[in-house]
Amino acid sequence: MPIQAISWTAAGDVRVLDQRRLPGEEVYLEIGTAEGVADAIRSLQVRGAPLIGIAAAMGLVAGLRDHRGLPRGPFLARLEGHAAALAATRPTAVNLRWALDRMLGAARDTSGDGAPMWDRLQAEAKAIWEEDRAMCHKIGEHGLALLPDGAKVLTHCNAGALATGGIGTALAPIYLAHDAGRQVQVFVGESRPVLQGARLTAWELTRAGISCTVMADAAAGALMRAAQLDVVLVGADRIARNGDFANKIGTYALAVLAHHHSVPFYCCAPSSTIDVTLADGDAIPIEQRPADEVTTIAGRPVAPAGVAALNPAFDVTPARYVTGYVTDRGLVRPPFAAG
Amino acid sequence: MPIQAISWTAAGDVRVLDQRRLPGEEVYLEIGTAEGVADAIRSLQVRGAPLIGIAAAMGLVAGLRDHRGLPRGPFLARLEGHAAALAATRPTAVNLRWALDRMLGAARDTSGDGAPMWDRLQAEAKAIWEEDRAMCHKIGEHGLALLPDGAKVLTHCNAGALATGGIGTALAPIYLAHDAGRQVQVFVGESRPVLQGARLTAWELTRAGISCTVMADAAAGALMRAAQLDVVLVGADRIARNGDFANKIGTYALAVLAHHHSVPFYCCAPSSTIDVTLADGDAIPIEQRPADEVTTIAGRPVAPAGVAALNPAFDVTPARYVTGYVTDRGLVRPPFAAG
Repeated sequence: MPIQAISWTAAGDVRVLDQRRLPGEEVYLEIGTAEGVADAIRSLQVRGAPLIGIAAAMGLVAGLRDHRGLPRGPFLARLEGHAAALAATRPTAVNLRWALDRMLGAARDTSGDGAPMWDRLQAEAKAIWEEDRAMCHKIGEHGLALLPDGAKVLTHCNAGALATGGIGTALAPIYLAHDAGRQVQVFVGESRPVLQGARLTAWELTRAGISCTVMADAAAGALMRAAQLDVVLVGADRIARNGDFANKIGTYALAVLAHHHSVPFYCCAPSSTIDVTLADGDAIPIEQRPADEVTTIAGRPVAPAGVAALNPAFDVTPARYVTGYVTDRGLVRPPFAAG
Repeated sequence: MPIQAISWTAAGDVRVLDQRRLPGEEVYLEIGTAEGVADAIRSLQVRGAPLIGIAAAMGLVAGLRDHRGLPRGPFLARLEGHAAALAATRPTAVNLRWALDRMLGAARDTSGDGAPMWDRLQAEAKAIWEEDRAMCHKIGEHGLALLPDGAKVLTHCNAGALATGGIGTALAPIYLAHDAGRQVQVFVGESRPVLQGARLTAWELTRAGISCTVMADAAAGALMRAAQLDVVLVGADRIARNGDFANKIGTYALAVLAHHHSVPFYCCAPSSTIDVTLADGDAIPIEQRPADEVTTIAGRPVAPAGVAALNPAFDVTPARYVTGYVTDRGLVRPPFAAG
């Protein structure tokens, strides 16, 4: 049974697993404000493109709980302020903006003052989460055929239950293959610098009873050359209209290596990841994160003091390297007709 | 001025920089036995294909110091025992075996008992070191034309002063370009799992006044796609007759990526790295190192307890991906005529 990364507390707070503390400790945060959710997203306590959209929507609901008595204008102004702060936390994943836009639209479409608007926001956040959970399951169903018994699959970063409201995107077919009794050999790229592969993907798979093998990202080429991989499954933080997509740094290199070795390479993502406003991937903003994510590990320096570091959190993989997209709507091949 | 990674103490011990403790501490070990040198090589306190050959040769000299009074037979038996133990420490780099074979040959070629044989061993170890220092400089000279002013170069692992008796192999052209007043932008792949790039290459370059930028290994593809690299320079642990070569895990992926992006990719190595007994790279033994190098960092778990890990220390890059080999004998292009 995959982990549940997010939920409501009885009091209406947002309950999230603190992903910075994995794999060592399983600690849950209970967050009652939109600012608190923004901080958790910024610090990577909550991460994963679909999950940060859900968390942001739920954060708006929790944060406006005590302001239901406001008249329409002030309530909406407060909502918009919170939404802007949440949207500014991370630039690359489009699901965050998509969820916030849905929440803003829902509120604006609701007549009356704060109380009915808040009720509508609560229903909308629940819908966003439920839809994501359903989309994850659909992605799993559509991707299941890619993982016959004995398949050797590589995944990168964490596109699992810890990144979504359900069973993940790239990991969804792996969970369903496991449920179907198939033996699948899962290789997990550790995903430096933040190690979401080693820390999160390996943790959630192990916890669900699925064994996997962790490796340095740099080992993927040799593994493909040794013909030890049948398929690569990755997630996405934003997909442009032409199918180019942004995902964790290193995804592009895997795509080129897979292409070079004729290993099928699939991008697994819900419809909410598609940004129809962008013609191609070059327009996707790439978040540059602090140098110390590269130069220190667990607070210990692993590079000389003061050295420069390059730390783009994502890269863009052009559609021409993608064998197919596994979405909630089916398995589609390029050219990608967006949503 | 590049760091000097190895030297003799006045008492005839082998003095080496403890590379496990970099970049935090600059601590020197003084080792008086062949077993001590073997331990230092096995634990990666001393590493780098040329350097472990030199260290092994010097370890034989230090370890046999007190046995100069032995008759020929027992002296030779002791020498052979030490050489076998040193040869068994690490399987991939051929320079180690090359240096040990030279030492054994030198002793056998010397008539008389322990005393003259030891004198010859001492001279041979000094020669191995001096020749390596000279070869490094030659590699630098032959590679200098690859780094015009403003060049952007990527290197992987550590093929520098810390890996050799001189100014390195892949870093030698960088040192000479710096001496020549050229501004070269150096990108350093951190080289997980042991982080020789971040810990060692960035440290020795910074110490020599050459600025560089550290990055996750997974970022190389995106950097090439952004046309931010002019050339890739790497070292080698063993080169087969046809030019296939073993080097730090991740080198093969860089070679494929460089090939794909038309970025020139050079292997820099002294003649002692060529193994004329091997027809191609598939015969090079690849060292598998302990899983905990991947699953822990500085003693802290970065993956769930008990998870499997793949940890090949090296991979093999076929000659067809190599633009050229920068050796002490010149810059040569494939097909590579060994010897």
